[in-house]
Amino acid sequence: MLVVMRQDAGEEEVRGVIRAVEARGYKAHPIPGAQRTAIGITGNKGALEAPVFESLPGVLEVIPVTHAYKLVSREVKAESSEVAVGNVRIGGGTLVVAAGPCAVETHEQTLTIARAVKAAGAHLLRGGAFKPRTSPYSFQGLGEEGLKILAAAREETGLPVVTEAVDERALDLVEEYADAIQIGARNMQNFSLLKRAGKAKKPVILKRGISATLEELLMSAEYILSEGNYAVVLCERGVRTFSDFSRNTLDLAVVPAVKGLSHLPILVDPSHGTGRRDKVAPLSRAAAAVGADGLLVEVHHDPNRALSDGPQSITPDMFEALMGELRQIAPVIGRTL
Amino acid sequence: MLVVMRQDAGEEEVRGVIRAVEARGYKAHPIPGAQRTAIGITGNKGALEAPVFESLPGVLEVIPVTHAYKLVSREVKAESSEVAVGNVRIGGGTLVVAAGPCAVETHEQTLTIARAVKAAGAHLLRGGAFKPRTSPYSFQGLGEEGLKILAAAREETGLPVVTEAVDERALDLVEEYADAIQIGARNMQNFSLLKRAGKAKKPVILKRGISATLEELLMSAEYILSEGNYAVVLCERGVRTFSDFSRNTLDLAVVPAVKGLSHLPILVDPSHGTGRRDKVAPLSRAAAAVGADGLLVEVHHDPNRALSDGPQSITPDMFEALMGELRQIAPVIGRTL
Amino acid sequence: MLVVMRQDAGEEEVRGVIRAVEARGYKAHPIPGAQRTAIGITGNKGALEAPVFESLPGVLEVIPVTHAYKLVSREVKAESSEVAVGNVRIGGGTLVVAAGPCAVETHEQTLTIARAVKAAGAHLLRGGAFKPRTSPYSFQGLGEEGLKILAAAREETGLPVVTEAVDERALDLVEEYADAIQIGARNMQNFSLLKRAGKAKKPVILKRGISATLEELLMSAEYILSEGNYAVVLCERGVRTFSDFSRNTLDLAVVPAVKGLSHLPILVDPSHGTGRRDKVAPLSRAAAAVGADGLLVEVHHDPNRALSDGPQSITPDMFEALMGELRQIAPVIGRTL
Amino acid sequence: MLVVMRQDAGEEEVRGVIRAVEARGYKAHPIPGAQRTAIGITGNKGALEAPVFESLPGVLEVIPVTHAYKLVSREVKAESSEVAVGNVRIGGGTLVVAAGPCAVETHEQTLTIARAVKAAGAHLLRGGAFKPRTSPYSFQGLGEEGLKILAAAREETGLPVVTEAVDERALDLVEEYADAIQIGARNMQNFSLLKRAGKAKKPVILKRGISATLEELLMSAEYILSEGNYAVVLCERGVRTFSDFSRNTLDLAVVPAVKGLSHLPILVDPSHGTGRRDKVAPLSRAAAAVGADGLLVEVHHDPNRALSDGPQSITPDMFEALMGELRQIAPVIGRTL
Repeated sequence: MLVVMRQDAGEEEVRGVIRAVEARGYKAHPIPGAQRTAIGITGNKGALEAPVFESLPGVLEVIPVTHAYKLVSREVKAESSEVAVGNVRIGGGTLVVAAGPCAVETHEQTLTIARAVKAAGAHLLRGGAFKPRTSPYSFQGLGEEGLKILAAAREETGLPVVTEAVDERALDLVEEYADAIQIGARNMQNFSLLKRAGKAKKPVILKRGISATLEELLMSAEYILSEGNYAVVLCERGVRTFSDFSRNTLDLAVVPAVKGLSHLPILVDPSHGTGRRDKVAPLSRAAAAVGADGLLVEVHHDPNRALSDGPQSITPDMFEALMGELRQIAPVIGRTL
Repeated sequence: MLVVMRQDAGEEEVRGVIRAVEARGYKAHPIPGAQRTAIGITGNKGALEAPVFESLPGVLEVIPVTHAYKLVSREVKAESSEVAVGNVRIGGGTLVVAAGPCAVETHEQTLTIARAVKAAGAHLLRGGAFKPRTSPYSFQGLGEEGLKILAAAREETGLPVVTEAVDERALDLVEEYADAIQIGARNMQNFSLLKRAGKAKKPVILKRGISATLEELLMSAEYILSEGNYAVVLCERGVRTFSDFSRNTLDLAVVPAVKGLSHLPILVDPSHGTGRRDKVAPLSRAAAAVGADGLLVEVHHDPNRALSDGPQSITPDMFEALMGELRQIAPVIGRTL
Repeated sequence: MLVVMRQDAGEEEVRGVIRAVEARGYKAHPIPGAQRTAIGITGNKGALEAPVFESLPGVLEVIPVTHAYKLVSREVKAESSEVAVGNVRIGGGTLVVAAGPCAVETHEQTLTIARAVKAAGAHLLRGGAFKPRTSPYSFQGLGEEGLKILAAAREETGLPVVTEAVDERALDLVEEYADAIQIGARNMQNFSLLKRAGKAKKPVILKRGISATLEELLMSAEYILSEGNYAVVLCERGVRTFSDFSRNTLDLAVVPAVKGLSHLPILVDPSHGTGRRDKVAPLSRAAAAVGADGLLVEVHHDPNRALSDGPQSITPDMFEALMGELRQIAPVIGRTL
Repeated sequence: MLVVMRQDAGEEEVRGVIRAVEARGYKAHPIPGAQRTAIGITGNKGALEAPVFESLPGVLEVIPVTHAYKLVSREVKAESSEVAVGNVRIGGGTLVVAAGPCAVETHEQTLTIARAVKAAGAHLLRGGAFKPRTSPYSFQGLGEEGLKILAAAREETGLPVVTEAVDERALDLVEEYADAIQIGARNMQNFSLLKRAGKAKKPVILKRGISATLEELLMSAEYILSEGNYAVVLCERGVRTFSDFSRNTLDLAVVPAVKGLSHLPILVDPSHGTGRRDKVAPLSRAAAAVGADGLLVEVHHDPNRALSDGPQSITPDMFEALMGELRQIAPVIGRTL
């Protein structure tokens, strides 16, 4: 942490800051400059505590330095982590593709799509049984019935299942039926749910909130790891900006940023990230090329009749063509598909 | 809903859209223009369903028209609602000020602050017993112990108590001890929690998420009303932007916007909205002047030692001065303090 | 400037940074911490040069400390500046209101509006003769003819005139005819135009760009002062965010932020800041209450026929009512109207 | 354009809107719905005129439908345009890579880099002779001297030259010396400069402003085309968001969005788009994979000593490795490198 003094701050004010630092048991390192003095602080407990000094007399600003996350940090664990979802490993040499419908609607719909994505080479089946919806009047998913359908689809296709838990009750069920528990963007800072996920026996796919910083995303992952569950995969799904030609703005630079700071794998969801069918394949290619560990893609055999997010779902034919493209891009970043 | 066709869309494509509209039981109203055709749709179920038509051949874009919220809408209920928190009415002729510490730390700290804000003229006591914190290693609040302290402070000062519920377990307790249940920004789209709040016997103060649109805020309120709890107060507490001299950007235009679309009262929280002590009073004045129904202000008698959000807390002296300013501004918008 | 090393950075890497610092003639101040080392740098030339060190081996991040602006800084000049526009002083005890049409359309239109705003108590007449328009096919202003109309309106009403210069040719003319030169948001970083404005003999009103940081705004003002023109007034007119119920998001916290960092006065433009007539008066009140030195308000006697920005113009009646409200708010912040 | 009435709007208010539409010579198409009436308008002149109706009694909102750009639209010209820069064609089967230093510093520096990027397979040489800088105290480029150095580098390497014009005087010179005129992000809405570029005899590379919508970018291109210069290439270089791990957020979905709406080619600048050396290669790969027509990459043989933007410049070795990766990705989207 660095406390920057105003140019007109006097010696007494500098001493005041030093006393405040030392009163908390930390060490102060004054750095006198030509224009102003700065005071480095060591021994403190992390970035979030920093602002305390901001209101002392003579202080211009306080700059946090150390980051508060620990277990997720690459500084703590240098080698990249691999996370197993069923028999599929995310974070290793395979570009992992999870595909399936936005929402589980019927047994037939789910099986039709599961077979199609399996045939095209998908590694995981995704599909929502619990749907967080902006409106209380929208379809909210089939619940446990949907989980049973997903389990049946896994039974037939062999694809491990990824599905979202919207609250602790849902998480109990998802943990029982599925192979990975997805925490959605809206719940990225639902800390009670994160703590529950940290006690789960299944891996967790944690989506970035639509306006979460990287620090916040990593801190939310830290909640899960700090409860004992180290099997966490991050997922970029677009952030909210003024840009209006896509539903969200896919922030692909987060992938190399995560790789620098954390050992956790990271997926990209180009379906929510763009919200438009015609942009899913281009952004999927981009996500593979930028170095993501995998993709989460919505596929529907009849998207115009889908109960949820039809406009961003691609058809099985489009998915198959996309898989062909991804197979060519994967080797460029040292992966196979 | 309006479907806009491409300039080069042929008659067959226009007919295709009309058939798709009618197949869903809606009515199509073609509007032929000089450059292109648009097709109005009536009878549909709301904005969120709109994108289904976007991928039909020949369609340039689909524009949602009707809003999906109902119970919160001023179109449904023209007169402004008043919500009672204990014996204090929000949304009427009084500019209501809720003040208190960010977090309840000790009995003495809370009572000291409660007495001070009471003396300065505050109407409600605010204070957090359950704290949602970015880091798992930060102070997370005293829990039920904190609620008991708040109740004791109410006992002594007569101020009704507002406090946050971070999950359903906390909500059970908050409902028992407090006079109003606050749902924080991070939980604005925690739909399970909203539904639970909709069954509560106490009024709910719903904070806007840091990147929530007005539509989303109103839809989240709709979740609560649709479960039977009509005592909902909205609260603006800043949105996340690139702007870096305040922690969030307080979006005060939301106040007249809410007044136009909804009958619900709306508060402003200048403490979280700015994150900086020196900006709390200016933005509090601005919030009163823009027409907010009240304020939520963090006050701490020793902010540099506060366990949470010290830098954005003002001192009792600053609060008293602020109340004096607000007393002069309130009449301009037809209110008293 | 502070260079933060990675936890795993070795002594040699720390020495490498120190050598790089010293090679540039600066001084290095190593701060060894429990987890990592940071290195303070003094003697460097400012924030913008900082990133050079970011790519040295072992460096985690580089944090700029000193700000590069000088002449605009309150650290350099502690007392607030007043800027005279004709016989009106901005930045002193008067809440200055500039009002008038978005665009000068005709002699009659401008005179009608000028008389109305004068009667209601406005101090300055605003109106555009050169209009920056998103579309090449929109009305671009009357040019010099418009400036003559504004001069005629000043002649009759006595109101000094503020009008925008969109390029250097326009600035030559505006300097000749008007009392203050407005630089619009789109030109805030048109550095050639800023330099020309710095040589002008008239005061400059510099609007914040729709996504400019405060640092950038102050640096753009610095361009003008550094050429010798110290008569600069800043103006907040809304920033671009995801928020969709107003055309822009008025960022009122910039007013106390500017007051803290700079001695320059600052106005607020609630017309462009909201883009909606029904929000102009509420946000004008808020701007006065937050402590702005004045307002820039669009008024049109027949806004539905205005050639430019009709929807955000208020009528003379609405303006008169607003002036009444501002008269009540001004004393709260120690001003008169 | 669609005018949406309030639910409680009466017949007289609907008739009022219809009269207002017809008074402007347009045609009104009322669409009575179960909840409210909407009124389609045809014959009007474009989106920007739309808001005029918003303030009529009974109107809830006005929704623009047609877009105001014409010459840049794919609806007007269905086939994709190719733009020749010297002997290099942008927008055809080649993924075009422009590379070079951020700023031209010396003859030797520029020639060293030009030879290196030529050897690695770059098609165009980029380099700034006129630099728009946030601070008046930063290095602002060598001016005409820099243009002469670029011309000498072209002479030796055969690479056509792309360089920025920051104002009209600079544009005169750039037009004389260079093969393509770059308009920077800060000048995207400098309409006087755009008009001048529209009269130039050289192709124009127009960068997207840091908070420009796609509509605004296309309208700015329309300015250039409407003056007679059809050789325009767009360029995405990142938008400003809250996201803080890269200098800007590269908005790659703009590439398929532009391809849908316009016939103009589009490049991506991953150097400004990320601002960090370690993210340039990943985002370059992503830009190629998303379907961009080419890249603008900053390369410097000694980036830690660069006078401008060193931290985002990659070395010749990194550039050569990147070109190898791009050669593998280009065929996936039907291009060669």
